[in-house]
Amino acid sequence: MTKPASPAPSDRSRLRRLHEKAAYDRATIDAILDAMPVAHVGYLHKEAPFVTPTLQWREGDRIYWHGSAASRMQKTARGYPVCVTVTLTDGMVLARSGLEHSVNFRSVMIFGTAEEVTEPEAKAAHLKAMMEQMFPGRWDQLRPMTAQELKATAILSLPLTEASAKISAGPPLDPPEDAAWPVWAGVLPIHPAMGAPEPAPDLDPGLALPDHAARYRFGQAAD
Amino acid sequence: MTKPASPAPSDRSRLRRLHEKAAYDRATIDAILDAMPVAHVGYLHKEAPFVTPTLQWREGDRIYWHGSAASRMQKTARGYPVCVTVTLTDGMVLARSGLEHSVNFRSVMIFGTAEEVTEPEAKAAHLKAMMEQMFPGRWDQLRPMTAQELKATAILSLPLTEASAKISAGPPLDPPEDAAWPVWAGVLPIHPAMGAPEPAPDLDPGLALPDHAARYRFGQAAD
Repeated sequence: MTKPASPAPSDRSRLRRLHEKAAYDRATIDAILDAMPVAHVGYLHKEAPFVTPTLQWREGDRIYWHGSAASRMQKTARGYPVCVTVTLTDGMVLARSGLEHSVNFRSVMIFGTAEEVTEPEAKAAHLKAMMEQMFPGRWDQLRPMTAQELKATAILSLPLTEASAKISAGPPLDPPEDAAWPVWAGVLPIHPAMGAPEPAPDLDPGLALPDHAARYRFGQAAD
Repeated sequence: MTKPASPAPSDRSRLRRLHEKAAYDRATIDAILDAMPVAHVGYLHKEAPFVTPTLQWREGDRIYWHGSAASRMQKTARGYPVCVTVTLTDGMVLARSGLEHSVNFRSVMIFGTAEEVTEPEAKAAHLKAMMEQMFPGRWDQLRPMTAQELKATAILSLPLTEASAKISAGPPLDPPEDAAWPVWAGVLPIHPAMGAPEPAPDLDPGLALPDHAARYRFGQAAD
């Protein structure tokens, strides 16, 4: 798991500054985007907000997401303002007062106008890039994509020009007058874990689990 | 962990119907909401969508979320249309073609106009309900909330009258002509896991980890 930049536990002043910290540097933003493929895309439909979960992937200075060309999200969002939010939940923070309870998390919000990738060769290259980031080497092992499948897939994109990260990490930040209150306080860390791979019921038993599947860790950047 | 309704692996026709299934029954919707506290709230700010991660909790026929009364989300959303989406990611589905790759997930989308809870006693009761759902018995152990803290906390709410669930579960659904393609196919299951609790650096060592913290499992409904 990609560890958030964590302050030394004994340094309360540094913790306080990092407790809920906005960051605008690309290293921080990219690390969060590269660790968490699940994004929530916000868009407008008939003047009301919609929030749809989907997978995102980053290539350089842009993020991409895809879906059926017939889906509401892909048809509605292209050419319009969107907000794409990516969140990793790292822990529950139990403090001495209700107010100071919080969640340790890493999130990125990206704002902009969703642009559609329309050129077929570019679309194919982006889909391969998505697959290769998650499962290196898998794309060339798959039944090749057909022109019809490519046509049925809509890819949208945003530049990372209007993006921010927010990281909350570290122990509870009770004020000094609460520190002696007789209740347990601390962090309950959370991380995604992988279960045992489940081969498809109709899989040829001679096909062993490939490295790209065995090594996959949801919620972590690839090695 | 709340298990999604899963088809028998040998019954392909039932799997296909359940693969990406919309559900409108409250039992399905409630189970997802009760298992996953993290929500993404979509709202409009200057005619553009914003998507903010926050915690939600359900009480009967409504969900609630809270935040600083000074936060953009709480000030902007109240009285306006919002979409609250809750997502559990259950697995990566590896198929024989790129097109059939997918994610197993359970999600709920709730639409409506965000209503603010303003009455102080009602606010306090809702905050206690939130805490008790996650950490039973903890509320009464905390340093009591002050009137000022209550005032600084804004609680918004939505009824579950316009809500839908979507569940994608089960193995990859390659068409028969792809089933023999020589690539591993199956599901890589994902579930949230808890790390070892991290006591606050200034915690009295005499305070043992309480049951409500030891038993907490992110991503699962409470017992």
